[in-house]
Amino acid sequence: MSIKKPQILKGFRDLLPEEALAKKNLINVLVGEFELFGFTPIETPHIEYTELLIEESQGEIEKQLYRFEDNGGRDVLLRFDLTVPLARYVVQNQNDLVFPFKRYAVGNVFRAEKPQFGRFREFTQCDIDFIGTDSLLAEAEVLQIIASALKALNISDFKVRINNRKLMNAISATYNFSDKIQDVLRTVDKIDKIGRDKVVEELVALSISKDQVDKILAFLDVGRGSPKEIVAKLKELEIESDDFKSAIDELSELASYLEANSKNFEYDVSIARGLGYYTGIVYETNLDNLPELGSVCSGGRYDNLTQNFSKQKMSGVGASFGLDRLITGLIKLGDLKLKKSTAKVMCAQVSSDTASDILNVAAKLREKCIPIEVYPQFSKLKKQIQYAEKKEIPFMVIIGEDEKEKGVITLKDLEGREQFECKDVEELIQKLNL
Amino acid sequence: MSIKKPQILKGFRDLLPEEALAKKNLINVLVGEFELFGFTPIETPHIEYTELLIEESQGEIEKQLYRFEDNGGRDVLLRFDLTVPLARYVVQNQNDLVFPFKRYAVGNVFRAEKPQFGRFREFTQCDIDFIGTDSLLAEAEVLQIIASALKALNISDFKVRINNRKLMNAISATYNFSDKIQDVLRTVDKIDKIGRDKVVEELVALSISKDQVDKILAFLDVGRGSPKEIVAKLKELEIESDDFKSAIDELSELASYLEANSKNFEYDVSIARGLGYYTGIVYETNLDNLPELGSVCSGGRYDNLTQNFSKQKMSGVGASFGLDRLITGLIKLGDLKLKKSTAKVMCAQVSSDTASDILNVAAKLREKCIPIEVYPQFSKLKKQIQYAEKKEIPFMVIIGEDEKEKGVITLKDLEGREQFECKDVEELIQKLNL
Repeated sequence: MSIKKPQILKGFRDLLPEEALAKKNLINVLVGEFELFGFTPIETPHIEYTELLIEESQGEIEKQLYRFEDNGGRDVLLRFDLTVPLARYVVQNQNDLVFPFKRYAVGNVFRAEKPQFGRFREFTQCDIDFIGTDSLLAEAEVLQIIASALKALNISDFKVRINNRKLMNAISATYNFSDKIQDVLRTVDKIDKIGRDKVVEELVALSISKDQVDKILAFLDVGRGSPKEIVAKLKELEIESDDFKSAIDELSELASYLEANSKNFEYDVSIARGLGYYTGIVYETNLDNLPELGSVCSGGRYDNLTQNFSKQKMSGVGASFGLDRLITGLIKLGDLKLKKSTAKVMCAQVSSDTASDILNVAAKLREKCIPIEVYPQFSKLKKQIQYAEKKEIPFMVIIGEDEKEKGVITLKDLEGREQFECKDVEELIQKLNL
Repeated sequence: MSIKKPQILKGFRDLLPEEALAKKNLINVLVGEFELFGFTPIETPHIEYTELLIEESQGEIEKQLYRFEDNGGRDVLLRFDLTVPLARYVVQNQNDLVFPFKRYAVGNVFRAEKPQFGRFREFTQCDIDFIGTDSLLAEAEVLQIIASALKALNISDFKVRINNRKLMNAISATYNFSDKIQDVLRTVDKIDKIGRDKVVEELVALSISKDQVDKILAFLDVGRGSPKEIVAKLKELEIESDDFKSAIDELSELASYLEANSKNFEYDVSIARGLGYYTGIVYETNLDNLPELGSVCSGGRYDNLTQNFSKQKMSGVGASFGLDRLITGLIKLGDLKLKKSTAKVMCAQVSSDTASDILNVAAKLREKCIPIEVYPQFSKLKKQIQYAEKKEIPFMVIIGEDEKEKGVITLKDLEGREQFECKDVEELIQKLNL
């Protein structure tokens, strides 16, 4: 048999134990918060009928798809997000779901994009969605989840920046540039990066008139601040539009729901969110000490999630957590250390005569929920210590012939390089818990 | 835009919230146990190069594969198990891993098998493997994990039935039917289902001689029992083979490591495990009260996991947990009730004047880790009660105009149909914790 060179596909990756462990722990914290808010998980297949996930003739997107014919001749697609499958799911399973429907989903999606640093062709999305209600209470809950989740990760210095898409929509309708609204939003979205002057330049390039640019700028100058402050400033703007006023009313109502965690919520009229399907409140989240990281959690309200599958309109509010960015952020902030082992103690194996004694000690420690590794071979103690040190396991327990004769257990503190003799497992547990 | 009928591919499935929640909780318990034993997770891609996952010209298997050409012209395959990718992974990442290497993996795999009741084309595998050691201490650890994990799921009546493949290998070598060993094992494996007589019939049909059949039957008559008992009976057999004796020695050594949880371990010489790659100790696990469920956890030792990728031999021991069977089993045993919500309390929304009051109550309860749903609309109370009842949320909290005036909070016990007036959140928490 010929030996094959082990390799993975371009743009894909393996996670080392320490990376996978950090990711798993992060997801557990997020999921714990989602469940504290009464969100439940769902699962959908990784493969679906292509025609249900994409519209015909989306030329550019086609190149990014993992699309193929299965053995039954079906045109199938690896999912590229969790949102389109969600739309299909809520319609198909509507009789078994309770509405308004709240779900979270953590799953891998596939996009054959050009590989770049930190971008992969398979990556994990972590989404929450609140479907089937028009009430701003849904936005309020989703925003509180974002704040609670980051706090549960020990991040307290962050801002969720909130806007209402309807503001700019109203301006564009009132001042006659609705046809260019997507381009304008895309330009405005970059104001943090390119600055006010560049934005003006680009708007002019879009054939936005001086008067229109002035209105946009006056609006953008409202800037960011506390919800009350921004609502007040928006009211002062002389935009002649009922839609604009009702968009302000929404922000005003939402502000009243955001009292808990209020220091983490900000209104920011420059937030646009690229995706076309958002129709109301939108938000993104930045860490105060790592603004360069970009948004770690974004989302907003969409008006008609299920339009491809049902005549019944279902609006919703969603948010998506950026797992990779959060891990990078936590490591940079010093709040996350990658760990190669979950174990606090390694039980050494020094002799077959004492093997069952050490296994019994391991069993008793595990009963007390102390994570234990048992070295699985009779090897030189030096080799076993090296193993424990490589895996950064802080303690080692030894029962050799000497210990067995004396009826004691040796506990080695591998970091402090101290050594204790414990008369029984109880004393050992006591020492470990100090 | 035309409305499309929502549907999923044949053999695939959606999980409803209550199903996905039960699965997630089950996985969390298992993973908790794996980590208590110092196993860490890894992740590998869902898609890999076809030639690395399968041998050329595996005709029959080909039909079961999700194999296609990606946009870069690569011949790729959706993984059909977690074991072949593990072999690729340990060789490719060996410089970053610490050996002996212990990992767990929970992930979906894809096989286009004929859909049957309870069998799906995408399903989740949950595997542990202990790689890079020949010592029976590895088997001992894996077997203890199985016992601990089932106990953590509140299952105490189960048997892990253990055998050594080398016993039958030695018999077949000694009595000259090595060439038929796979067929013999497959037949013997069915003894629970078809009985002793049928096994004899099938062995004869395989052209196994009367003398050979007698030897096999004498061996099978050792049956099952405590490790010590079976080792003693095996020693009494008159099989003229040094390999047979050394296989007994292994079982004898392993028995000495299995003292913890010993009532759950049994030796059973009829256990064969279908898969060709096991070479030593093998095991499967049955629930005493649900034998018809089949094995909920199986595995064994394989000699050379990495032979396709490296000349360096790496043996290992693995076990695979059957998640679907475990969920079915737990439901049948009454140890698992499917829950539609994680929430203990639903906060009703009765008036926009009290919305922020109720949101503050929700925030305070969540700070105490009490899972809360907030109803996201101002609707009739009856509708909100229906929602809570459908989701089996036991308590409801209400702050209406009356409550606000009196400065109290109403707590409704939806199951007991009682109602309490709490003077503050502290009293509410107290009542909820009773």
